[in-house]
Amino acid sequence: MTRRFDWVKLENFCEEIFHKAGLSRKDAKTVAESLIEANLRGVDSHGVVRSYIYLRRIHEKMINPNNEMVVEVDGTVTLLDGKNQMGSVIGKKAMELALAATKEHGTGIVGVKGSNHFGTCAYYLEEAIKEDIVMFVFSNASQTMPPTGGIRPFIGTNPFSFGAPTGNHPPFILDMATSEVARGKIINAFNKGESIPEGWALDKDGNHTTDASKALEGSVLPMAGPKGYALSMLIDILSGVLTGSGFGKYVNNMYENWVNPQNVGHFFIGIDISKFMPVDVFKKRIDKYLDEIKAEPKKRGIKEILIPGEIEYRSKQKRRKMGIELPLKVEKELKEWGKIHDVDLEKALKERQ
Amino acid sequence: MTRRFDWVKLENFCEEIFHKAGLSRKDAKTVAESLIEANLRGVDSHGVVRSYIYLRRIHEKMINPNNEMVVEVDGTVTLLDGKNQMGSVIGKKAMELALAATKEHGTGIVGVKGSNHFGTCAYYLEEAIKEDIVMFVFSNASQTMPPTGGIRPFIGTNPFSFGAPTGNHPPFILDMATSEVARGKIINAFNKGESIPEGWALDKDGNHTTDASKALEGSVLPMAGPKGYALSMLIDILSGVLTGSGFGKYVNNMYENWVNPQNVGHFFIGIDISKFMPVDVFKKRIDKYLDEIKAEPKKRGIKEILIPGEIEYRSKQKRRKMGIELPLKVEKELKEWGKIHDVDLEKALKERQ
Ligand SMILES: NC(=O)c1ccc[n+]([C@@H]2O[C@H](COP(=O)([O-])OP(=O)(O)OC[C@H]3O[C@@H](n4cnc5c(N)ncnc54)[C@H](O)[C@@H]3O)[C@@H](O)[C@H]2O)c1
Ligand SMILES: NC(=O)c1ccc[n+]([C@@H]2O[C@H](COP(=O)([O-])OP(=O)(O)OC[C@H]3O[C@@H](n4cnc5c(N)ncnc54)[C@H](O)[C@@H]3O)[C@@H](O)[C@H]2O)c1
Repeated sequence: MTRRFDWVKLENFCEEIFHKAGLSRKDAKTVAESLIEANLRGVDSHGVVRSYIYLRRIHEKMINPNNEMVVEVDGTVTLLDGKNQMGSVIGKKAMELALAATKEHGTGIVGVKGSNHFGTCAYYLEEAIKEDIVMFVFSNASQTMPPTGGIRPFIGTNPFSFGAPTGNHPPFILDMATSEVARGKIINAFNKGESIPEGWALDKDGNHTTDASKALEGSVLPMAGPKGYALSMLIDILSGVLTGSGFGKYVNNMYENWVNPQNVGHFFIGIDISKFMPVDVFKKRIDKYLDEIKAEPKKRGIKEILIPGEIEYRSKQKRRKMGIELPLKVEKELKEWGKIHDVDLEKALKERQ
Repeated sequence: MTRRFDWVKLENFCEEIFHKAGLSRKDAKTVAESLIEANLRGVDSHGVVRSYIYLRRIHEKMINPNNEMVVEVDGTVTLLDGKNQMGSVIGKKAMELALAATKEHGTGIVGVKGSNHFGTCAYYLEEAIKEDIVMFVFSNASQTMPPTGGIRPFIGTNPFSFGAPTGNHPPFILDMATSEVARGKIINAFNKGESIPEGWALDKDGNHTTDASKALEGSVLPMAGPKGYALSMLIDILSGVLTGSGFGKYVNNMYENWVNPQNVGHFFIGIDISKFMPVDVFKKRIDKYLDEIKAEPKKRGIKEILIPGEIEYRSKQKRRKMGIELPLKVEKELKEWGKIHDVDLEKALKERQ
């Protein structure tokens, strides 16, 4: 029950629909790119499956795509008020500011408030990697995980991500939800009508469940017990408490709250490699590290030791050629929103590049 | 098979013995403080149990307690070459440099090379918290964990830590090994002759084991599968690859390698809260966050929702009054090394403050 799409045509379609929905051409392109990037990387939970909720929130004026963001720079530290723009547009701006500060000062930090769901962190990290900057990107998210010992959602699956350039290897990209698995994977299982493994989630009464729909009403479990709970909290402290954005219950759920903006916060930390050693020396050293780790003896049945980001890098190579598969449910949503904004999916797919 | 010690007398004894072993009075005090701090916080795996190995490495000239460290400051970024001094002396210096850079620039980074095992990260974080600075502290460590899919140690249990000040709550201190549990806990189990739970470690052939001695010959498992493996790697990349220190197999095992220094690397990232908002506003916000999380409904059988650092904070209050319990094995080691350096444990315990 899936159909395969050429990634360029799908990206153009997304750009068009977000543009018609009220975004500037440039911003529409950013949103489309960030969604398609997730699909290309195999992170379907954060790909075009999110289009309809973004479009619906724009439609319901829960997102204001034409607001001016406000930037306050104070040396190495920048505070960006997203003014409830689209999450990925704000995220891209934050990354640009973080790169500028890092290049000027050796380190740079951007705290973001007043934002929305910004999709996959890797989209931003790839910009930093191109410029040979090491970067952390964090975001808080609406309540989906209980604290250790609790029974209902209080913290988000707040993603933790880190990227570093390499020489001959795919870039090192650790990009993870602080949950056992990303909530999007449960949404995907639900969309496909599949059950989920034990240990991923609690139902709304705090009991373990393998039923994706019950899990979506309940809460996702943090990775590694209290360690993941603590990691998620630290992201909330930096992205929410410190930036002046929402935290805990003050980050609104984009699927459920139709009265208030989300008020998501993000946090970017950049480090200039060249302050430590010439970039090419760093690349030789990290290549050596990765060469050695990949050459380690493997468990029976394991073909290869992988480095973080490698699975997604290979997916991207493949899907650029083979296309992106979407469930019919997602295709239907795209078509419906296409109709609302007068953009025809079938026509877009026939267009020549 | 334990005996209870007054923490002040035990700290004085440790200071004395490290001083007699060749450290300056000031440096001996730092080492003693860092060890006792771990015990007070209940982190016995990183307390005075480590004295004998530190003393033995000094004795065997694998650590050079009188070397001059070399500091290179370039704006926000400082590179500290520890020159194979004692780990905690280097760690303390790094924290001082990180605080100075952060206060001057808003953010500050210190990369450290040529260091040794520096004990518990919380010891350094507490300094930052006193000064209302938010701080990350990372360290790499010698090989104890396999990569995901591997069977033998390649990465260390590289600790990840983060601290932030609060108003009315104990400070937020996340301080964790990136393993399912710290290797020190397996050493403790071994010292007590206890077995360990399944899932903590593999034996030297890559099979799961509950035998602490087999686990110590084998490898500790990363927390949360590939996510913990990736976290440990990122710490190695920052602390080792980027600083110019050892990484992977180039960080030597302090228990096994008697030919070369350890060449451990550390990485400190500081953030000045006042660049974002007045510190008292931040403290009110984080208190609200922690108040709300602690007020969440609890699972049956759970008395209280805890915040990271709270268990250790309470342990410290208690052990300052009640004393620190040490296994006889550790007491014996202290006595032996005391004899070598002409410091009498029993006499030290009788001394009046
Ligand atoms: N914006 C938000 O609110 C939000 C919230 C949560 C998650 N997310 C996004 O969700 C996405 C998916 O997160 P996830 O946690 O499900 O990812 P995941 O579990 O699929 O992967 C996590 C990380 O582990 C690495 N990895 C996985 N298996 C590996 C192996 N065998 N060897 C080495 N490395 C391996 C991956 O490369 C990746 O870096 C991320 O892009 C994240 O940014 C976003
Ligand atoms: N220097 C080195 O090479 C090295 C290597 C590994 C570990 N270490 C040290 O080992 C020590 C122990 O690490 P660990 O991983 O065993 O610690 P741990 O598992 O006991 O605790 C990890 C963190 O989780 C928090 N925590 C635990 N239970 C909680 C709960 N129920 N609710 C809320 N928070 C909770 C703790 O406060 C702590 O911050 C640390 O001090 C670390 O710095 C050092």
